[in-house]
Amino acid sequence: MTAPRLSLTFAMAPDVQERIFTPERMAAFAEVVDLAGVLTEFESDAARQVLAETEILVTGWGSPPVDEVTLAAAPRLRAILHAAGSVKHHVTSEVWDRGIQVSSAAAANAVPVAEYTAAMIVLANKRVLPIAGRYRAERRAFDVEQRFPGLGNFGKRIGIVGASKIGRNVIELLRPYAVEVVVYDPFLSVDDASDLGVEIVGLDELLATSDVVSVHAPSLPETHGMIDARGIGLMRPGTTLVNTARGELIDQEALTARVLGGDLFAILDVTTPWVLDADHPLFDHEHVLLTPHIAGSLGVELGRLADVALDETIRLARGLPLEYAVQADELSFTA
Amino acid sequence: MTAPRLSLTFAMAPDVQERIFTPERMAAFAEVVDLAGVLTEFESDAARQVLAETEILVTGWGSPPVDEVTLAAAPRLRAILHAAGSVKHHVTSEVWDRGIQVSSAAAANAVPVAEYTAAMIVLANKRVLPIAGRYRAERRAFDVEQRFPGLGNFGKRIGIVGASKIGRNVIELLRPYAVEVVVYDPFLSVDDASDLGVEIVGLDELLATSDVVSVHAPSLPETHGMIDARGIGLMRPGTTLVNTARGELIDQEALTARVLGGDLFAILDVTTPWVLDADHPLFDHEHVLLTPHIAGSLGVELGRLADVALDETIRLARGLPLEYAVQADELSFTA
Repeated sequence: MTAPRLSLTFAMAPDVQERIFTPERMAAFAEVVDLAGVLTEFESDAARQVLAETEILVTGWGSPPVDEVTLAAAPRLRAILHAAGSVKHHVTSEVWDRGIQVSSAAAANAVPVAEYTAAMIVLANKRVLPIAGRYRAERRAFDVEQRFPGLGNFGKRIGIVGASKIGRNVIELLRPYAVEVVVYDPFLSVDDASDLGVEIVGLDELLATSDVVSVHAPSLPETHGMIDARGIGLMRPGTTLVNTARGELIDQEALTARVLGGDLFAILDVTTPWVLDADHPLFDHEHVLLTPHIAGSLGVELGRLADVALDETIRLARGLPLEYAVQADELSFTA
Repeated sequence: MTAPRLSLTFAMAPDVQERIFTPERMAAFAEVVDLAGVLTEFESDAARQVLAETEILVTGWGSPPVDEVTLAAAPRLRAILHAAGSVKHHVTSEVWDRGIQVSSAAAANAVPVAEYTAAMIVLANKRVLPIAGRYRAERRAFDVEQRFPGLGNFGKRIGIVGASKIGRNVIELLRPYAVEVVVYDPFLSVDDASDLGVEIVGLDELLATSDVVSVHAPSLPETHGMIDARGIGLMRPGTTLVNTARGELIDQEALTARVLGGDLFAILDVTTPWVLDADHPLFDHEHVLLTPHIAGSLGVELGRLADVALDETIRLARGLPLEYAVQADELSFTA
């Protein structure tokens, strides 16, 4: 006699579902659970019929929040697996109250952001993109060492603001490099820092002594403006600021002023507003690389998120605990 | 009674010597050897007086080759430590004939090239630089996934042409990434490939199946044009070619034609000629990043080469074998 199979429902935009839950992945799901359907809303009669039998809900971009009304329609629901980053806007307090297990692919979502960041740190120290810009403009050889004194990675200091999942991934990716990593994070213990092979410093010291400052703090009321005009002012000429977190964490006006003054470099995947005005001077400055919020999971990287939901589903089907379980009390201090 | 100290001489351009052998490093040398002098030529009487007592010669950029005449003036010479990449143009056959030990910092010199390459591979799969170019041009949000279908690193295949020191370093740096690495190298054994965690494939298969192709073969008569027009033709639309080795390894005309046709991407630190004509179309194409031969050691990275020469000097002073000894027969198949 085999145990009854769990009933699983997807809730996300249909194009997201089709694109990341490929036929191969769907077949893998179908091996361990019964697939009840794909929902884009929780309110129609058809949706409520599906919810009535749903035991596992796989959510993603485009899923409505799982609120009290939805929960009332889903009496058998025991797990929500979020195939995306933060569950903050998808899960309401009633979910926790009912003891439903929640898992998120935030750890998997952190990977491409960390990859983007580590690559940018290495290129920033070497001044690769400003040199490429100059080369394109001048179309002749020039003395790069005279133009960019002290370029290179060997022995440089990297300041990581926030030992979040992404921050820790960046630290891991930098391990093979001959750089020194310092971290500011009020919640990082000395033991954890030692395991990570980094030194804990204050934010002022980090800003004043790092060759590259990379921001990986969550966006919370208390982190907005955490690198303010005074903090921007502490950075030495030649420092690169990398921001893949949120534009609001930084005083963008102060940053822009120093970049235009010629003595700071910036790599910004996020800004305030997230698309700058077309005439914003950061768009054209040779010491700046702007990307339109692409460091997170995109394209094939969404497959990694789907794989996490699949792995978690297999664990549930086997009666094992979730690997990426999220607790209600984590949400107040993470992204 | 202490053993007599070895006599060490530097032979390189004076600005190179001053810049990379900092006072701290010079003090470290002075602790273990007697410093005889810094030479820029081996022909004057003054130079020959220094050579007469020299036991260790630390060579670098700007050093004349150590030929028969020089060797005749340096009867006590027992080791040449090259604080740069290849010793090919600095060491003549007479050096080997006399049994002088030779060491090079080629392994250290490989590090920044590999770092540049690994960072570029990660950014290439994500289409970061073409997206940044589009963002600068359009100054508004656009659908990056529609514009660049399949972007991202997860599950991509990286083809490494040449398991040289640099090629192997790139492979090591890519270990934390969820990519598959295939290698073409006629001298790579199955055991070595297994240790590196890569699969050996033929060059045609590598070109036809990789998402990024990165060239790390030495520049030898038999490697010139190894990626010829036919090979360029094998690459799938969307493939990125990274070349940090030598322009001559690639049929640049065929590469340019496919880039201009819109279906190949390229990141080139080397070209033929090494500075392209000012009107060359690769300078302006959004799918191309050109850098002026900067992937190797520059700026602070030269300190790593000096550290190798220092470490080797300490080993000689202690009677230990060199760590980066070069053998005469290696030079025929390495860079």
